[in-house]
Amino acid sequence: MTSHTDHTEQSAVTVLGLGPMGRALAGAFLAAGLRTTVWNRTPGKDRELVGRGAISAASPEVAVATSELTVICVVDYEAVDSIVRPEAVTDALKGRTVVNLTADTPDRARSTATWAAEHGIGYLDGAIMTPTTTIGTPAGVFLHSGQEELYQRHRPVLDALGGTHTHLGEDVGRAAGYDLALLDIFWTAMAGYAHALAMARAEGITARELAPFAKGIGAILPPIFEQLAEEVDGGRYSGEGNPITSAVSSMAHIVHTSESHGIDAGVMRAAEGLARRAIGRGHGTDGFIRITDLLY
Amino acid sequence: MTSHTDHTEQSAVTVLGLGPMGRALAGAFLAAGLRTTVWNRTPGKDRELVGRGAISAASPEVAVATSELTVICVVDYEAVDSIVRPEAVTDALKGRTVVNLTADTPDRARSTATWAAEHGIGYLDGAIMTPTTTIGTPAGVFLHSGQEELYQRHRPVLDALGGTHTHLGEDVGRAAGYDLALLDIFWTAMAGYAHALAMARAEGITARELAPFAKGIGAILPPIFEQLAEEVDGGRYSGEGNPITSAVSSMAHIVHTSESHGIDAGVMRAAEGLARRAIGRGHGTDGFIRITDLLY
Repeated sequence: MTSHTDHTEQSAVTVLGLGPMGRALAGAFLAAGLRTTVWNRTPGKDRELVGRGAISAASPEVAVATSELTVICVVDYEAVDSIVRPEAVTDALKGRTVVNLTADTPDRARSTATWAAEHGIGYLDGAIMTPTTTIGTPAGVFLHSGQEELYQRHRPVLDALGGTHTHLGEDVGRAAGYDLALLDIFWTAMAGYAHALAMARAEGITARELAPFAKGIGAILPPIFEQLAEEVDGGRYSGEGNPITSAVSSMAHIVHTSESHGIDAGVMRAAEGLARRAIGRGHGTDGFIRITDLLY
Repeated sequence: MTSHTDHTEQSAVTVLGLGPMGRALAGAFLAAGLRTTVWNRTPGKDRELVGRGAISAASPEVAVATSELTVICVVDYEAVDSIVRPEAVTDALKGRTVVNLTADTPDRARSTATWAAEHGIGYLDGAIMTPTTTIGTPAGVFLHSGQEELYQRHRPVLDALGGTHTHLGEDVGRAAGYDLALLDIFWTAMAGYAHALAMARAEGITARELAPFAKGIGAILPPIFEQLAEEVDGGRYSGEGNPITSAVSSMAHIVHTSESHGIDAGVMRAAEGLARRAIGRGHGTDGFIRITDLLY
């Protein structure tokens, strides 16, 4: 850890974007003793951070010029572009490095990396997999991708965010690819939970009554995910004990019961359709995970 | 535990249906020392069980007449009806009890209970929430619903199946209601995982590479399920730190990336549509679980 008075550029960092996540990032850098410069398009978001020692910059070009490393975390890459692509900011970033922790698609990450390379700006793309409350704690999970050398150089500053940092490879789109795949699991599961709660309510079952059992379902997912990953990579889809024909029977019961209560079953209808197509193609004795191959 | 020679009716049980689950149930009863009579429409499925001491019945009416309690576990209630509704079987069941562990909908459970009551047959409806391998072990999870007195009377025999048995109430449809809601969570999450693996693969990420992080997503679900159950029952949908507008942005990225690779995004499209409707109705600052109320 570096003291406030010993502020070489290596121990300095700029944070662009002060939404809940940006503020958590800047707060963790400050707590680690880094000279932290902050900027946000809408003013006033930096008040508490400035009270804790952050330097408030009047413009993004001033903000990025104060540190070798700029961390940006805004709503999406359109917002990133609107901040960093104006000439004054691009010029100020030349020879410096941007770590983009904004969530977006792998192709946006790659096109931003191309823009950065064309302007002599070091570029790493990252994703934060855990809530704002985990930032600065051991529970944070950060994924990074892009040039390994650049990642290693800035690792000491990134480590100030706490948690686990994983470099996924030099393809700069990898962090976004992992991020989207994991969000896909999360939000699909949440849609399933919301629908289950609606259907349970129609059957006179409260969310609190269902919750202990729902937690049990959540708890069995991790080992199943691990086992199925082996099957999918290996191209084997063992339906032993649980063939896709049995899954589709449950799905049909869910759709029927949901719709008999006037409850939208669109998500399950889509999933059931995939399972029925897999059966239609002759994979009825395989496990449900067979649909992975049929989505293409 | 009762020895084989001391076979009062209380220590006897009949199992109808010898698919993988029916065989596991009968095996657990045998292991617990109960006089176990088995029957299956397709012959030959009882060979191993008979080797372990099971009595093979030539017909369902003979099978149900040997025990006060009959456990039935077949593919669905159509199969149940085809076995128990013929007159000879219905007559043989009069004054005895059926525990139906077949998975189907709550309305089917209620109509089967009505049929049973009309014929003087005791009826309990149940659901098995865990795989065949958990039967007879502490890991099994069994849900039951129907007349409490009947449940308590047969509890000693059901306990031979091991695991946790929960009586959910006298409404005979409750076990099926819980079952469907929990299967809804499970199969929707599995559809999300299959889609995430397909999208990851298109981005050059193997299932094995994604799995450790996917397991992390699975692990955060149980506490989130618990917290959201409180919100849903309370009619509060706090989007603090994670409003539905942010969820919908992730969902749009997933749909875009999926379809840009030619991958079907129907499940996520359906979920995104629900989130967008919630926003359209003015709930953009609420959490995603708000959609529970909009499914009706």
